[in-house]
Amino acid sequence: MSDLTARFRKLWDEIAPIGRDAGSGGYLRYALTEPELLLRGWFRDQAEQRGMPIIEDGNGNLFAWWGDPDAGDAVLTGSHFDSVPHGGAYDGPLGIVSAFLAVDELRESGVTPARPLAVGAFVEEEGARFGVPCLGSRLLTGALPAERAAVLRDADGVSFAEALGHAPAGARPELWGRFRSFVELHVEQGRALADTVAPVAVASAIWPHGRWRFDFRGEGNHAGTTRMADRRDPMLTYAFTVLAANKEARLRGAYATVGRVSVEPNATNAIPSRVTGWLDARAAEPEILTGLVEAVHDKAVERARRDGTAVTLTEESATPLVAFDGGLADRLAALLDAPVLPTGAGHDAGVLAGHLPTAMLFVRNPTGVSHSPAESATDADCAAGVAALARVLAELTC
Amino acid sequence: MSDLTARFRKLWDEIAPIGRDAGSGGYLRYALTEPELLLRGWFRDQAEQRGMPIIEDGNGNLFAWWGDPDAGDAVLTGSHFDSVPHGGAYDGPLGIVSAFLAVDELRESGVTPARPLAVGAFVEEEGARFGVPCLGSRLLTGALPAERAAVLRDADGVSFAEALGHAPAGARPELWGRFRSFVELHVEQGRALADTVAPVAVASAIWPHGRWRFDFRGEGNHAGTTRMADRRDPMLTYAFTVLAANKEARLRGAYATVGRVSVEPNATNAIPSRVTGWLDARAAEPEILTGLVEAVHDKAVERARRDGTAVTLTEESATPLVAFDGGLADRLAALLDAPVLPTGAGHDAGVLAGHLPTAMLFVRNPTGVSHSPAESATDADCAAGVAALARVLAELTC
Repeated sequence: MSDLTARFRKLWDEIAPIGRDAGSGGYLRYALTEPELLLRGWFRDQAEQRGMPIIEDGNGNLFAWWGDPDAGDAVLTGSHFDSVPHGGAYDGPLGIVSAFLAVDELRESGVTPARPLAVGAFVEEEGARFGVPCLGSRLLTGALPAERAAVLRDADGVSFAEALGHAPAGARPELWGRFRSFVELHVEQGRALADTVAPVAVASAIWPHGRWRFDFRGEGNHAGTTRMADRRDPMLTYAFTVLAANKEARLRGAYATVGRVSVEPNATNAIPSRVTGWLDARAAEPEILTGLVEAVHDKAVERARRDGTAVTLTEESATPLVAFDGGLADRLAALLDAPVLPTGAGHDAGVLAGHLPTAMLFVRNPTGVSHSPAESATDADCAAGVAALARVLAELTC
Repeated sequence: MSDLTARFRKLWDEIAPIGRDAGSGGYLRYALTEPELLLRGWFRDQAEQRGMPIIEDGNGNLFAWWGDPDAGDAVLTGSHFDSVPHGGAYDGPLGIVSAFLAVDELRESGVTPARPLAVGAFVEEEGARFGVPCLGSRLLTGALPAERAAVLRDADGVSFAEALGHAPAGARPELWGRFRSFVELHVEQGRALADTVAPVAVASAIWPHGRWRFDFRGEGNHAGTTRMADRRDPMLTYAFTVLAANKEARLRGAYATVGRVSVEPNATNAIPSRVTGWLDARAAEPEILTGLVEAVHDKAVERARRDGTAVTLTEESATPLVAFDGGLADRLAALLDAPVLPTGAGHDAGVLAGHLPTAMLFVRNPTGVSHSPAESATDADCAAGVAALARVLAELTC
């Protein structure tokens, strides 16, 4: 084991038990709940050990500084601590642990950055507690007004302002304006690297993606007495639409998932009166995405005619293509001799990319699984990620 | 409007508002909750007005007697008051209201029964509160031990014994042994009569039926980053199975319904790790039912192989064929010149049929809908049902 691999494992072990569910082996690290507050305390300790003063942005985001925060033209790295329910260990925390280790690497190799460097921890990236993904970065950049964020509530009715302990500060252009670039290191969430020799890749773009709600309405009735020919069963239309979404996505090289469903009355002996399914769809190009959703809707409508049901489609959210700074991605790919990949997942980097040159580094994930306890990365690959991040930060701060 | 139709409407109007939900127009008449207790109070009033003393069986079932309860060889009619969530007005109450009106008809026409006649109100027929359908009749006949019924709990944690106010008495053979036959009048729950000229039919049998749980297991993963080819998505296997169940049932002239589903984690941006669907299946013959469930399971397994998922099948309940007393059904069909029909729905009559000669009368339902606010019957057809029941009771008590 290399020294860096051992150092990674040592620091990683400090946070590994925090918020882990013994049953699933996954993590329950919801923003501003006890496990995430413990991780934020750990963040403060790490910053203090390195003599890095912390600036809080009043929205729940923390920034630990190496160099003068007021000098401007700083380079930001970091990620988030919060997880989805029973999520993996790496999604988020890997980017923060790697950032502190990259600072150590730079210092050991005698690099003194010409520009300030900050390590950030963004709050509520997953949206698992308050329902809005990238809440912290959206607040910081003003993409989400503070008044709206303040009243978001978790499942227990606790508001974001209550969890934070005060009203969120909202947009802080004088803070994010100090950053000249942002680099987020993240575990890969697919298997694009798994079959290659590269432990690290550079992101080209975040695919356009969105959520569409399909409401299927039929006629609630008794499962034991209603002749098959007399039924108007929306579960059939739903089932057909699930299969159509899968097929249409494959035809287009896009992604489509129906992972959430709601049924009324959801009783074993009742033909449902209503079935609602949520389509998550993503594609490399906006036109492909639009074509995919239209094709699925067309198939649903056609099937609804046969089932005697009705279908309505509602767009619940749509995120356009985020193209990361092309010059920056090419520069980092050349520096690291790393492949360049798109991703289908949203990140704080996607929000910040609208405001400053932003890049992402992906660390290989052998299972390709994420948002699940099976999410993985080898210690050697994580160390390779730290080394790559250190080189990138040296390059950007010089 | 005939006199009988007017009398039906008048008595029907007394109970129509009780437990009706203003929003859905359906009924929330759960066993031993306020609306059903009001209906039981109404039952006592009706019995008292007719000079019919009540015997309670200690299980929540009420019996109002015309004639000496100790004479034996009595004829029982009646049904239940409780409803499914947002159920229809007729399922249950029609059989009780019709029974009191049939007593009135017999008395007006000067009939004095040679044998005692009892009007019964069974508790918790739907199983909507405590989860076991035909709870009252199962307790009375000993099909369900009193100790097991006592500890059944509703969604609020209230036990059946607490709701009843005492431990249930359990089997009462000395009580049901007094009955020589049972006739339950019920609204039709399909459209077999809707296209005929007959307002009333006689039941031949309750189809064998059951509930089977299909557990589909795959690999939970991120909807935005997992390549379609790398997925093991149990929602696809579920959807295929829903469509297969429908097709296989149609091929066999049987019924199959998947009206209940549960998903983990049921999040829009997550490929599910597990999907569970419940199959309700019913057929005229046990062999057809077995063949249907096997065919659906085979299709599910075949699809699971393609999806990289796993499927397990669990029989949660199975009710064998209930053939009503053939001689009695033929006798009543001849008496009423009525068609003879099977049904797919369970009833207290199905439980009592194992202990004494039992028959059911169905009143035409133009929509064919039941367990829903759209359940219907015309006043004229209900009056025809009362007249038919009166003739049947006169025949059986003479």
